[in-house]
Amino acid sequence: MYPLLQGLSVIEASSFVASPTAGLYCAQFGAEVIRVDQIGGGPDFRRWPVTGENDSLYWENLNRGKKSVALDLSSPQGRELLQELVRATGQFITNFPVGGFLSHETLSQGRADLITVRVMGWADGAPALDYTVNNAVGYPMMTGPGPEPVNHVLPAWDLLSGAYAAFALLAAIQRRSVSGEGGEVRIPLSDVAIGTVANLGGIAEVLYSGENRPRLGNAVYGLFGRDFVTADGQRTMIVVVTPRQWSNLIAALGLEGPVAAVEAERGVSFAKDDGLRYDHRDALFPLFEAAIGARSHADLAAALDAGGIVHSAYRTMLDAARDPRLVGDNPMFSAFDANPSGFAYPAAGPFGTVPQLERGAPQAAPRNGQHSEQVLAERLNLSSGEIARLIDTGIVGTPS
Amino acid sequence: MYPLLQGLSVIEASSFVASPTAGLYCAQFGAEVIRVDQIGGGPDFRRWPVTGENDSLYWENLNRGKKSVALDLSSPQGRELLQELVRATGQFITNFPVGGFLSHETLSQGRADLITVRVMGWADGAPALDYTVNNAVGYPMMTGPGPEPVNHVLPAWDLLSGAYAAFALLAAIQRRSVSGEGGEVRIPLSDVAIGTVANLGGIAEVLYSGENRPRLGNAVYGLFGRDFVTADGQRTMIVVVTPRQWSNLIAALGLEGPVAAVEAERGVSFAKDDGLRYDHRDALFPLFEAAIGARSHADLAAALDAGGIVHSAYRTMLDAARDPRLVGDNPMFSAFDANPSGFAYPAAGPFGTVPQLERGAPQAAPRNGQHSEQVLAERLNLSSGEIARLIDTGIVGTPS
Repeated sequence: MYPLLQGLSVIEASSFVASPTAGLYCAQFGAEVIRVDQIGGGPDFRRWPVTGENDSLYWENLNRGKKSVALDLSSPQGRELLQELVRATGQFITNFPVGGFLSHETLSQGRADLITVRVMGWADGAPALDYTVNNAVGYPMMTGPGPEPVNHVLPAWDLLSGAYAAFALLAAIQRRSVSGEGGEVRIPLSDVAIGTVANLGGIAEVLYSGENRPRLGNAVYGLFGRDFVTADGQRTMIVVVTPRQWSNLIAALGLEGPVAAVEAERGVSFAKDDGLRYDHRDALFPLFEAAIGARSHADLAAALDAGGIVHSAYRTMLDAARDPRLVGDNPMFSAFDANPSGFAYPAAGPFGTVPQLERGAPQAAPRNGQHSEQVLAERLNLSSGEIARLIDTGIVGTPS
Repeated sequence: MYPLLQGLSVIEASSFVASPTAGLYCAQFGAEVIRVDQIGGGPDFRRWPVTGENDSLYWENLNRGKKSVALDLSSPQGRELLQELVRATGQFITNFPVGGFLSHETLSQGRADLITVRVMGWADGAPALDYTVNNAVGYPMMTGPGPEPVNHVLPAWDLLSGAYAAFALLAAIQRRSVSGEGGEVRIPLSDVAIGTVANLGGIAEVLYSGENRPRLGNAVYGLFGRDFVTADGQRTMIVVVTPRQWSNLIAALGLEGPVAAVEAERGVSFAKDDGLRYDHRDALFPLFEAAIGARSHADLAAALDAGGIVHSAYRTMLDAARDPRLVGDNPMFSAFDANPSGFAYPAAGPFGTVPQLERGAPQAAPRNGQHSEQVLAERLNLSSGEIARLIDTGIVGTPS
């Protein structure tokens, strides 16, 4: 935790990945993020992976450092309490439907300067998920060795939408600080996906060429990069992005002569041109496969490191979780045993490191309704008697 | 373009995807983003996809709406000019090395409240790229039907790091507006990747179970979701996340009886439990394969839409680029013919839609050095004579 956003409070009414990560990133930078859920948990409260006791390891990591208010959102009174919390706070992150009781139009009545950031499926309000926008924009047809499409496992569009939502929230706050005006920023997953295709040149590329990029397996488009297997069977990714890395790589592998022979035969120079190294990969890859296949991974890694060449071994997630550089010795992680699940494991702080500030410890996710009483008292000035009545009538939930 | 960040100026010295997208998102929200590059273009200036004239369709989309200053960054004087531009502006996005002439320590001498956001490879300064952190954290070993690892094609870690960098910039500005203090936020790709594994519960999952998640092909972990093929051969992704979607899906496919038979045989109820639908996918998937395989895609899509069930057909990127809903009729896109490449195609604006504001038109990427004279005059108060001398001596570049 770094206190960059200290003093900012946000109401989050959301589920799954995209809008919860927006709240998480804000909380990790010191904002007060109050997540409001259905009593007993929203649709993502038991999302897998879960423990043997059905506690979600997913939920308890996506909601670290947030406060939890539990309301009966199927009742008019519960819905009103959420609306009032949003109005009293002034900043709102959600993936609730654009037109329902959490529409910006409804919420901004009584809070004209409200800022709402809403992650959506399609821009027109139709439902979509990471896994459906991904195949709508074409990536699975380009992924893997073919011929079948391959879905990504990483929910990349959710994650990008979440980080962009956190950015959009602060951008809208920046504007309000100048103009006094609030407003809504709608972020449809479908626009994030097709907009990213456009930003990376993909729309231009396919319309220019009139055809789809070929499948490349594990090779990288437009430069020299691919997975290779060492003599001791370690698959390793190697990617070259600078002239120095290229010359160091062929020197490290003793391939100066064979590469020069390809250059002479084809009348090209690979020294400074990513595209040529890609175009002539049919001639280059076999040379590198043989040279790398004759070395142990330890020898290869040492030679590549000495040459500043970017490489990394393929690992499983369990290997990664046990890796000192990635987790054990990484200051972004701290040993942590205060998780709602009761399971102890390294907890992550924010991705960003601020050398000028002390890194605060990671925090626990709340139990459902853990902060209901505190938040209703502080934000809505409800008396303890009023809150007790709301709990008794099942409108407000607290941990059992 | 929406003017949320009007009045904010940022210097960007960067290349490839991550830090250029941070600048792009700021520019699309109205910030003045001044990209400073080597004269003739940085290492990403000819990155594929390129046109027949070797103009990068990638570069001209990742840098829309930015200004370009071209300097000879191999000369001490060029480097000093970049340092002075950063100090004069006060906000800096970069992926240059942490310890070089663009270190925050060096730059903040003379500009104590400077904010630097730096995208890095590893946190310790060692080089890494999207494609190498991805296999270091385990995703390719979980992707595809197996047994070989499958790299993603989408540069997901770069994209997430870029959006997070834009967020971190505004968070640091927010803190400075309160405290007066600047500082650096370092965002290593490796921490974004392993931190995301942690945020999604992956670290906890593998340490809890002691094993890796099995490969699932195109199925989604922990809920009912997979690709199916219709009678007319259209592969379609279907994902169920709510009880209502589940009951509507089995009704739409006439599977109430067969699903009830599985429930009776196995002693479970699928009505409200994502995890059970996933656990018993061996019994469920064949029922759905047969029911979907007996219908045309048009019939299936109509039935799913009527039930609010999330689905989408697999398409190629060319199909996506020609799709009216995604591009042609999507207000995020505008027809655009002022690209440096000379090729005309739909250009994307920001992912976020602000209903309260008018959407400005997308803008062109600059030519290398297009704004050198303007920016040096405005930001560093150089006279036209001084600028002319810098151009003559090759320290400053302008479009040829």
